[in-house]
Parts: sequence; C-alpha cells; structure tokens
Amino acid sequence: MTDTIDQAAEFTARDAAELVAGLTLEEKASLTSGASFWSTKAVERAGIPSIVLTDGPHGVRLQRGSSDHLGLADSVPATCFPPAVALGSAWDPELAERVGRALGEEARAEGVGVLLGPGINIKRSPLCGRNFEYLSEDPIVSGVLGAALVRGLQSQGVGASLKHFAANNQEFDRMRASSDVDPRPLRELYLRGFQRVVEDAQPWTVMCSYNRINGVFASEDPWLLTKVLREEWGFEGLVVSDWGAVNDRVAGLPAGLDLEMPSSDGRTDAQLVEAVRAGRLAESALDLAAERAVRLAQQAVAGADADASYDVDAHHALAREAASRGVVLLKNEGVLPLAAGARVAVVGEFARTPRYQGAGSSLINPTRLDTALEEIGRLAGAAPVFAPGFTLDAKAAADPALLAEAVAAAEGADVVLTFLGLPAAAESEGFDREHLRLPEAQLELLAAVRAANPNVVVVLANGGVVELPFAEQVPAVVEGWLGGQAGGGGVADVLYGVVNPSGRLAETIPLRLADTPAYLDFPGEFGHVRYGEGLFVGYRWYDARDAAVHFPFGHGLSYTSFAYSALEVSADANGIAARVTVTNTGERDGREVVQLYTGLAGSAVQRAPRELKAFASVELAAGESRTVELAVRRDDLAYWDLRVDRWVVEGGEYLVSVGASSRDLRVEAGVVVEGDAVRLPLTMESSIGDLMGDPVAGPIVAQALGGLFGGDASMAAMADDEGMAKMMASFPIGRLVGFPGIPVTREQIEQLLHAANAGR
Amino acid sequence: MTDTIDQAAEFTARDAAELVAGLTLEEKASLTSGASFWSTKAVERAGIPSIVLTDGPHGVRLQRGSSDHLGLADSVPATCFPPAVALGSAWDPELAERVGRALGEEARAEGVGVLLGPGINIKRSPLCGRNFEYLSEDPIVSGVLGAALVRGLQSQGVGASLKHFAANNQEFDRMRASSDVDPRPLRELYLRGFQRVVEDAQPWTVMCSYNRINGVFASEDPWLLTKVLREEWGFEGLVVSDWGAVNDRVAGLPAGLDLEMPSSDGRTDAQLVEAVRAGRLAESALDLAAERAVRLAQQAVAGADADASYDVDAHHALAREAASRGVVLLKNEGVLPLAAGARVAVVGEFARTPRYQGAGSSLINPTRLDTALEEIGRLAGAAPVFAPGFTLDAKAAADPALLAEAVAAAEGADVVLTFLGLPAAAESEGFDREHLRLPEAQLELLAAVRAANPNVVVVLANGGVVELPFAEQVPAVVEGWLGGQAGGGGVADVLYGVVNPSGRLAETIPLRLADTPAYLDFPGEFGHVRYGEGLFVGYRWYDARDAAVHFPFGHGLSYTSFAYSALEVSADANGIAARVTVTNTGERDGREVVQLYTGLAGSAVQRAPRELKAFASVELAAGESRTVELAVRRDDLAYWDLRVDRWVVEGGEYLVSVGASSRDLRVEAGVVVEGDAVRLPLTMESSIGDLMGDPVAGPIVAQALGGLFGGDASMAAMADDEGMAKMMASFPIGRLVGFPGIPVTREQIEQLLHAANAGR
Repeated sequence: MTDTIDQAAEFTARDAAELVAGLTLEEKASLTSGASFWSTKAVERAGIPSIVLTDGPHGVRLQRGSSDHLGLADSVPATCFPPAVALGSAWDPELAERVGRALGEEARAEGVGVLLGPGINIKRSPLCGRNFEYLSEDPIVSGVLGAALVRGLQSQGVGASLKHFAANNQEFDRMRASSDVDPRPLRELYLRGFQRVVEDAQPWTVMCSYNRINGVFASEDPWLLTKVLREEWGFEGLVVSDWGAVNDRVAGLPAGLDLEMPSSDGRTDAQLVEAVRAGRLAESALDLAAERAVRLAQQAVAGADADASYDVDAHHALAREAASRGVVLLKNEGVLPLAAGARVAVVGEFARTPRYQGAGSSLINPTRLDTALEEIGRLAGAAPVFAPGFTLDAKAAADPALLAEAVAAAEGADVVLTFLGLPAAAESEGFDREHLRLPEAQLELLAAVRAANPNVVVVLANGGVVELPFAEQVPAVVEGWLGGQAGGGGVADVLYGVVNPSGRLAETIPLRLADTPAYLDFPGEFGHVRYGEGLFVGYRWYDARDAAVHFPFGHGLSYTSFAYSALEVSADANGIAARVTVTNTGERDGREVVQLYTGLAGSAVQRAPRELKAFASVELAAGESRTVELAVRRDDLAYWDLRVDRWVVEGGEYLVSVGASSRDLRVEAGVVVEGDAVRLPLTMESSIGDLMGDPVAGPIVAQALGGLFGGDASMAAMADDEGMAKMMASFPIGRLVGFPGIPVTREQIEQLLHAANAGR
Repeated sequence: MTDTIDQAAEFTARDAAELVAGLTLEEKASLTSGASFWSTKAVERAGIPSIVLTDGPHGVRLQRGSSDHLGLADSVPATCFPPAVALGSAWDPELAERVGRALGEEARAEGVGVLLGPGINIKRSPLCGRNFEYLSEDPIVSGVLGAALVRGLQSQGVGASLKHFAANNQEFDRMRASSDVDPRPLRELYLRGFQRVVEDAQPWTVMCSYNRINGVFASEDPWLLTKVLREEWGFEGLVVSDWGAVNDRVAGLPAGLDLEMPSSDGRTDAQLVEAVRAGRLAESALDLAAERAVRLAQQAVAGADADASYDVDAHHALAREAASRGVVLLKNEGVLPLAAGARVAVVGEFARTPRYQGAGSSLINPTRLDTALEEIGRLAGAAPVFAPGFTLDAKAAADPALLAEAVAAAEGADVVLTFLGLPAAAESEGFDREHLRLPEAQLELLAAVRAANPNVVVVLANGGVVELPFAEQVPAVVEGWLGGQAGGGGVADVLYGVVNPSGRLAETIPLRLADTPAYLDFPGEFGHVRYGEGLFVGYRWYDARDAAVHFPFGHGLSYTSFAYSALEVSADANGIAARVTVTNTGERDGREVVQLYTGLAGSAVQRAPRELKAFASVELAAGESRTVELAVRRDDLAYWDLRVDRWVVEGGEYLVSVGASSRDLRVEAGVVVEGDAVRLPLTMESSIGDLMGDPVAGPIVAQALGGLFGGDASMAAMADDEGMAKMMASFPIGRLVGFPGIPVTREQIEQLLHAANAGR
C-alpha cells in the first residue's frame, strides 16, 4: 500500500479536504473510480495510495495478479466461514462479531482494505438466488447481526461495505428492475436494518445496489444516498457502487455515489471532468467524493499491517463453531443426539461432497474442507457405512443401483443419517430459484431409505429454504444450511451432541411456495417488481393471515428444555426494558435464543400481530436459571408516518411476548408506551370526522351540524343514525361550501380552521 | 322540461356548439354545474332547459320539491328492483336489459333525464360497504351486465350514468383516499368493465368518483377523464361528478369534468369565469363542457314524454323474476325444492321483515313489499308456523324466549326455513364492514334450531358476502342476497321450485376474511390504499395460490343437472369462438350459466390460472340438448403491456375451459392464438440476454462473447456454466463499456444496436 511506515503515517495525518484541494480536476475525478477490478487509483505525486477492495462477505476472495473479465475466477485461499444464512441462524451478535474479527484478520493479512460485506438485504421471497448471502427476513435480526459483523471486521483496521443498498431482494433482472415499494415497508423493513448498522457501527463504506427503487437507480438516487443515508442516519463513510451498478456517473456523483467500481478505464472520470467544465456538475460535489475516497484510503492505510498473518487452524475451528451454532434442529423425536456407539449409516452424496457455500461473487477458495462423513467417523470412532444414494447431477433420475446400495446400508443401521440438499446449480448470485423443491432423485432416495429403516435423520444442505414434504414422516430433521468449509464438522458436532443445537430460523419455512407472501409478484416483469405484500414479509404475513407454516420464524429445538418465568416490562424514554427468568430445565447444558416480540392491538396503522424487537442468545448449564435483560429501543417501536414523513411512536399498551419462537411464546405482559405527538394542521381537506375529534373545532362543528339537521325531522333522524354519521364524518369540510341547503361560507370554515389550528 | 312539444323539437334540433357560441361566459359556466341537488341549470333566453338527474341504480329515487341537505331523505315510490349484487348473480344480460328498460320507463314517467347507474366497480374486498350496489369481482361479468343495463335504460330515452369512475372500491375515506394501483390491474380489472360498457353501450354520462387514483383526484384527472375515456375508448357523452366529488373545478374542467353536481350555489361557476378571464383556463375547454351539457339536455328532452307512465304490477312481477334469478343455491342435499305439502316452519325475523336493499343514496321507496313469509304461505297454500328467533337489533344478545319459540316451531316441522342475514346497519354506502360474520344471536338461533331439527334450510339476506361457518352442518343453503321489493317472492319461488335456481356467484365466498386478497391493505391508512394483490382479485387470487374457498366464483346449484360435451374452439382475428353442447340431464326444466375461462401456461406475464372471458345463460327443458356458442373477444385476451403502454395479445396455445363454475370445469381444449407483435428498440439498457434473443444482434453478441471468454480457460468454463450464463444475460450491454478486460467500445455497441434495430 505504501512503501514505508513513514509514508503511511504522513498520508494518514493529512487533512483530506486539504489534500484534495491540491489536486487537479482530473486527479480528483480519478479518485472516484477504480483502477482495476479490485483496486482504487493512486495519485502518486500527492502521496495518495491505491487500496484494495475485495469480495466477502463470509471470506476473503482476493484475486491476485491479472484477474478475469468478470472478477469471478479463482482466488487465494481463505477461510470460508458459514455464509450469512447459517451465521444468521445463530442469532448471536457476539459470535458474529468474532467471525467479523477473523475476517478482518484475514483481509489485513492479504492487504485488503475493504471487505465487501455484510449483505443484509431482507429475504423477501425464498426464491431469491442470493438469500444464502443474507441474514434474515427480519430487519432487527439483520441489523443487529450486521452491525456485529461490521464491528468485528473494522476492529482489525479493515473496512466493511454494507450491501446491497437497497431493496435488492432478487436476482432476476437485478441490474434494471425497479423495486416498487411503498414508504412504510421501505422504511420499516428494507431500510431499517441498514439504518441500524450505519447508526451503530459506521461501516467505512456502503455499497449501493444495482436495482432501481421506485423507478430511480440506487446508484443515482439522492434521496437514498444522501438524504436518508447521510442526513438522516449520519453516515460518514463512502458510497461505492456495486460492481457495474453505475448507470450515469454524472447523475450519480452529486446524488451521493462516491466511488465507481470496477474501473471504467477512465471513461466515466472523463465524463465527470467534462461535466464540471461545462457547468453541469458542481466541482464541490466532486471534491466531496474525492475527499471521501481519500479518507477511505487513509483508514485502510492506517489499518494495514504488512506483517499481519492469521492462524488458519484457529479460523477453521471458529468456522466449525459458527457452523454448529447455525444448525437448526427442526424436529427431533428423541433420535438425536446420537450415542457414540450407535450403528450409523450415512446416506447421501453431500455427506462426502459437501455443499457449503453458494455460487457467484462470494465463492471462497477454502483453506481446507471438512466433510460430514469424515467428521462423523471421527466422533463415532469409526467410519460409518456410507452410500451416496444420488449423484450431484441434479437433473439425473434416481439411479436404481445407488438406491439399492443405500437401502442396504440403511437396513443394518440403528439410525440412517440422510444428507439431502439443493444442487449447487440451484443457488447462485445472478438468478433466482423457480421452486422450493429438492431434486426428485433425492426424495426418491429418502422414500426408499425410510421404507428400509424408519429411523431416519434428514440433514439438509441448502442456502435458501426448501419445502419439506417428508418432515412428518421422519423422526428428525436437521437444517445444516450452507455451513462453510467446516460445515461438515459443525453438523457432526450437533448430531453427536458435542454441540447442543441452538440455531433458530431467521426465516420462515413455508408449507408451499404458493403460500409465500411475494408469490404472486416475484420477480416482477418488464422492469418492475411491486412489493405488494407491503409490511407483511415473512412471519408478519403468516401471522397476520393466521396461516399455517411448516416451521415458524425463530423456531429451533435443543437437546435440553427451557422454561420462562417472571417477565417484567417497563417503558421509559429509551423504549421498553424487559427482564425474564430463563431456566434450563433439562439434564444437558445448552443455549437458548430468547426472543421478544411486540404487538399493539387496535393500532391506528397496519401492523403485524407480532414483530421481533429484541433477542439474546443465552448459555445455561443444566438446571441453571438466569435473568435475561432485553432492551427494545424506542426507535424500533416507531412506524413511518406518511402524514408527516417521519418516524412516529404510537402510544398505547403494547403487548410484550417472550419465548422460544414467533409461535412458541411463553410469557407476556402489557406495557404502556407514551406516543409521539403528531399535530396535523386542519385544512379544507380535513374531514368532518377530523374536525369533530379536535378539541377546539369539535364542539363548534357539532353545534353547527346540530343546527343544520335540527330544523328538519327526517334530517334529525338521519343525524342520529350511526351509518349516516359515519358517512358525514368522511366528508371533507371544504366540500360543504355551497352544497344545496348548507348555509356555510368558505370564510366561516376558514375562521373555524384558523381557530382550531391556533388553539392546539 | 319544456313547455311545449314545439319548444322541445326546436331545442333538440339545434347544433349544440352553435348554441353555446351564442352564450355569455357566465351562461356557459352556469351550464356546467347543478341548479339544485338534482337538476341542471337552464338558460331560458337561449331555450336551454334544466334536466333532472336522480339516483339509481336499481330504482328511481326521485325527491320531489325541496329536498334535504344531503339528498338522502324520502323519495317518491318506485319499483325497488334487486340491487346489483342479486342482478349480477343472474349472469344474464337479457334479464339485465329488461330491468334496465323498466328502470327507464319509470324514470321517464317521473320526468327524470338521467338515472345514476349502473355501478360497476370491482368488488375488491368483501368488506366494501357498497358491494351490494356492484355487480361482480370480475370485469367481464360487470362489463357485460353493465352494458345491458345501459342499453335497456337508454332504449327508453333516459340516460345512464356509469359509475363510479374509477377504482372506487371502498367507502372508507372515499372522498380523499388514493387508490394506488399499478397499470396492469388498473387496466385489466378496474377499468376493463368501464371500457366495455362505454364501447358497447355509450352511456350518456359517466360519473367520476370521489377518490384519488395514484394520487390524482378522479374529478381532475386528465389521463382518466380525457385520454383513457374519450381518446382511447371513444366516449361521446358527458362526465358528471359524483355528488360532492369536485375538489378544484378549475383543474377539473379542462381535465374532462363537464358537470359538477350538485349545485355549488354558483361559487365554482364564478371560479371558472374568473379563470377564463385571467387566462388560466382556455375558454374552449369551457365551451366543450357546455356543449356536452347542452347535448345531454337535448338527449333528455328528446327522450322525455310528459304522458309516460309505467305498469306498477308488471314491474313488481319483473322485480320478482329478477330476484328469483339472482338467488344462488349454494348447497342442497336433496331437501329442496320443497313439496307443496311439506310441513314447513319459518324461523327468523327477516322472513317477516325483509332486508331487501342497502342504505345510502340507492335507498328506494318501494311501490310495495313482499315478505318471504307471506309468499311461502301463498305457495304452500297455508301460513306456515313462524317464529322470529331474533330481533332486528343486531347488537342484542340471543333472547331465550325467542330461541325457545323457534325451537318449538322447528320441532314439529319437516323442514325449517331459517332466514338469516346481515343487519341493515352493517351495509351502507359511506362505510365498510369490519368483519364478515353474521350477528352472534342469529348463529345461536341456528344452533338451537339445528339441535331441534337438523333438516334446516338456511336462507340468507345480505348485500356483501358473509362467512358461513354452518354450511357443512345444514343440508341446504340458499343465498337470497338483497332481492329488492319482490325478493321475498323470488326466494319463495326458488324454495318451492316454481323457479329452478340458476343464480351464480359473481364473487367468491371465502372461508375467512383473513383469506381474502386485500385483507392486509384494505382500507389503507392516511389517504392511501395500496392495491397490493395486483391482478389477483377474487377468484384469480385463490386459484393462483391454490387456496381453498367456501364457494367458488361462478358456483350455483340447480334442481336439475347439466352435462357438457363436444367443445370446439377456434381462433381468428376477432378472438376465440367456442361451441359446446350442454344437455339438461335431469327431470326438470332449468337454466345453466355456461362459463368459459382461458389460461395461458408459461405466459411471459403474470396471469391468473383462469380468467372468465365469456358466459351464457341458457334455458333447457328436461332432457334438452343445445349447442351453445361463446365468443371471446380478442381484446379480452389482451394484457396491458408496460413496455409499450398499450394492450397486447400474447401469442400461444390458450387453454379454454368451459363449465358450471370456476372450479367445476367440465370440458377443455387448447387453441393457438396469434400474438401481437411487440418490437422494442434495442438500447444500451438492453440486456445481453435481450440481444442474444435478437435475430441480428444475437449471433454477433454470441461471437463477441465467445471471443471474450475463449482466451482464458477459467472464463471458458464459466461461459459454459448455466448459472454464469444467466448472470451474464442480465447484464445491460451498455455497462460493459470500459469494464476491466472487456475490449469493447461504446461506438462498437452503438453500431451493433443500430444494425440490430435496422434489421428488424
């Protein structure tokens, strides 16, 4: 990065604005786009070095030397930590922060200044091809864990790039399609996690996404990149484009896009220069972007350490720990954990050839690779019987010979561990799935194995959720996700009880694709995707419609049991504080993810019945009891109010429910929260009902209406009628002027409104 | 209207434009708003008379003399025909046209120039308080029946007012809220019925609705009132505001709002005059509106007949016929029709005190009123045992004495006819329902009666659909809707088999409110309602999600049975022609509503699995067989294409299914329809996939990509990878320029695009 420590120290000590002031227009422009696929441009005469940004999010994908044309070919070895789908299922910010630190160590050791991640987009549909790179269908889970990852990463002097900002919830036509989202879901779901990470962890960079939002490219949206991100949330870092996301740099730069990646071979820098010269672009906007690029380089240089290295073994162990923590025990009728002496048959090619990460820009070249088969053998003390059962060719029909071999293996076993999963080709950046089914050959294998030996444990490897039509037919189902390079060991640890499972679903597992909220408008057509389900994404949808799911959000079993008691809740200006006693009532040490949801019955706005607002992962020894404190931020209670275009906390008695999943709530209590005042001026468009509810205008309007109706018997009867009163109440007051027989002038109404507004 | 026939003839012979040219600015403005609640202004010196417009839609609600302040008090007696909910359930344009003619006769006899109806808004949610005034959840049913009503009405020299234009699908905050609807559902569902009525029947007037559409008041939306209505559909009549719908007349008039109703006491006329004088409003726009007002008056004068009268008895008989035709036999396990000698007990206050219409502006003062109780007695030859069972106070708890009386009545009977329904206060213009339940006291009555005598026929009176949790527990359910003044006789005729039921559900009966498409965003909040279900309204939603319903769209039983055979379909430039043989295979004469649905598997756009495209009501004697011809207009196959902003018929093999309901399809056949050509210019934003699919550009791009990838083994492998190919295909071609290692210039791409566009 810099040749000597002195140079580095000198550079980082400079004032970025001053440094930029000394540059030519061309030099400034040059700082705002890449030098290559993975590096920024230096301005050597000014002592500004180039820095390296490279793919994450769950490993360092550094391409040495001349890279390929799309930046997708091989990279140097790095630890492949569990992708976000698995890490998210651990619901543990402490673990996420440790993984972030390890990623930072590796990045620093490789000379990487910014690692591109975390990805925290909401899992709107299980079909999204990149869901394995995202954390949750819930913004609190995404935001809390995303912030922890950023903290960990940046603690090592390596920048994060929070992505993909924003509303990038599908791969189909991702470079053009507009995510058409209403203000409330946009703010309350799709932006909320980003807001939390920015406010809590200040990532060095935010990566704007490819897509349009309500018609405007994210890469050139001043509302998104400047008003919301900087002015509202206080973001202080640099906005970088997703690779190839720039549509129009001259529009993008003043909107808030600071750095285009990858290189445009100088083409768009020249456009900026020309635009400044022609007066179409303020030079101050370019100065600002260049300053941010300089500051980012300063951060990277300050964090760099040419002597840094990392402990490959320790990181592999951490990857294994994280993988095991992400495993979700969906179902267990006593067959798990396995006894060390159990006669185990292992069936399924994935036990030998693991699926452990998804395809696309996040593909890591792992430092090593565990297989479940070997790790099971290690824990069992001997290699188990193994039959692959199917091939990796997902389109191949079931092979009778492979089935027969698997059946034979199953017949002699106490337990059959059957490893099923999605084919690698089904899950990738760049395209979405079209269904949620496992390959037919795998389901046939399972049926054959079950017929031979009903004591089957299904172990799943998949980055996006799958339909589980067999779940009721087997005694245990283990969701192993894509577990990274040590995923095989992580799963084995759970199967044998080395790790007591504590993973929880960060997304609902539906019964059928057709039940999912976005089913009818995913992935849109002709450049538009309407987010028609609005606020009701994931569990919010199923709960609001009182609809069945296969496994609910937050679900995950343990080998021990937990009891909840003594919930206490209180509210103050900071939000809601809850204390609850959680007891490990079983015989085995374990970990519980304590989840807190709130609801507000009779809310004035649309709301899901329950929304996750806080959670804690708590380790408890067998028999141990502990008071767990959960804090709900007041900001997280707010809805986005269309009338005033800001966050508003509605007052009322909130129901606080605490438990082990969104549908396994154990204790609840009400707590009164004081609302934010929303005072809207009364206008000619205010309805009679609005006015009747106003302390000043109300009595006057009531009297006027009484006079109006009092003179006529039939009208008096109508005024007494509840339905008629409702109809009247919806009438905008201004429309009454001149209505036949209604003796009110515009001036009289204006006076009334003035008096009411003045009296508030 | 005019004093003499000579004056009338002279007026109607004048050229409207010429007439208007002779008026002062003030006179012209005066023609564009009402003189009172129900009349337009005359310009006596120019011989322009006032005409009367008055409420419909299912009767003439004429208020004589000084009306009340809201135009909602008593009116002169008129036949209360079945409200639209019942008439729509007959699925018979011939019947609708006859009812329209009768309405026209009554209007003419009362000196009414325009009757305000029909209302054809789509029933988006069963909660809409005004659903009883609307025909269907489907635009073809609404459009076909709406056109028939207009034809019938206008055949008598009385104008229709097609309403409420448009997207007015709820009552909540109806005077302000914006219906936020995407282009496809707006065009394909919410406007399609209006288009059909305008194109087929040219109503004299169209009434613009209160609400906003995508933020713009219908009363001042030039896109809606001029571009779509006049320029696209060829509307030649006058646009009148809904009563009180004018927000800003100076904006509304040039947008296409010709006539404000009711009177504004001259206030808004003066605004128009001032705006013309100030140059803010083109006088030509005012001239046009005034000319339309004059032409409407000419039509009304030409149609008027001071000597006209109507046959009250004949109209009552027609009302009874129409009511019986709208009755939908939902379920019948052999208990119906009743034998004349059956010992019948009648339970339920509604048998004695009928609910036969909804509240609000459509409330008719009927010429007479049948009760089911009396009509049953007439058909049975003796008054049946009767017990009211509940009171009309919907909030009252079940009354033990009334229950006991009903139980006693039920115990001695062969059959218990139990009349249940919604309370009158639940259904009105002006507000929406909040649930779909019948009153608790009625459900308790039913339970008590069933316990005493399981042979219960439930007869329902309701304008909006209700949940039917008891349907599986009784042998028969008869949906009588709100049947108008002869509804009691119409229901009795069906119960006793005088009329063999042929009514069909023009809207789905869901299992639960929570299952309905708009459940989560109806009725919106803070001035906006997002139509989040998009195209999937009514049966389209349940079919697309493969979800259970209680009774499907199109459902309705008969006392005979019908068989379908010999479906033949063909396609030509006019659309699809289908012929199907329908046979009455039972012992009783009857009427079948033959329904034709189309689907297009693998469509390039979102579509419901089945969409109604044609239907026919066919009378068949017992044993009779007939070939029924059904024509699907090519226009009705089209979807609204966002790319080109016009209707497009997609080519392909359509599946044509014909049967007795949307979920009782008996015969099907495929037919190939030639598609409309959609040629989009290839641009820098066209994706590589778009270009690959182009006959000219495709081979060039393929070769270029091959060259690009061929030089590098890893890249070549990637190019062979299906997933990678998908990712590449989504890349806009213009974004490749300057990408590291991709040796293509902007000029080269421009040449390629030029060649491809020229070659198409």
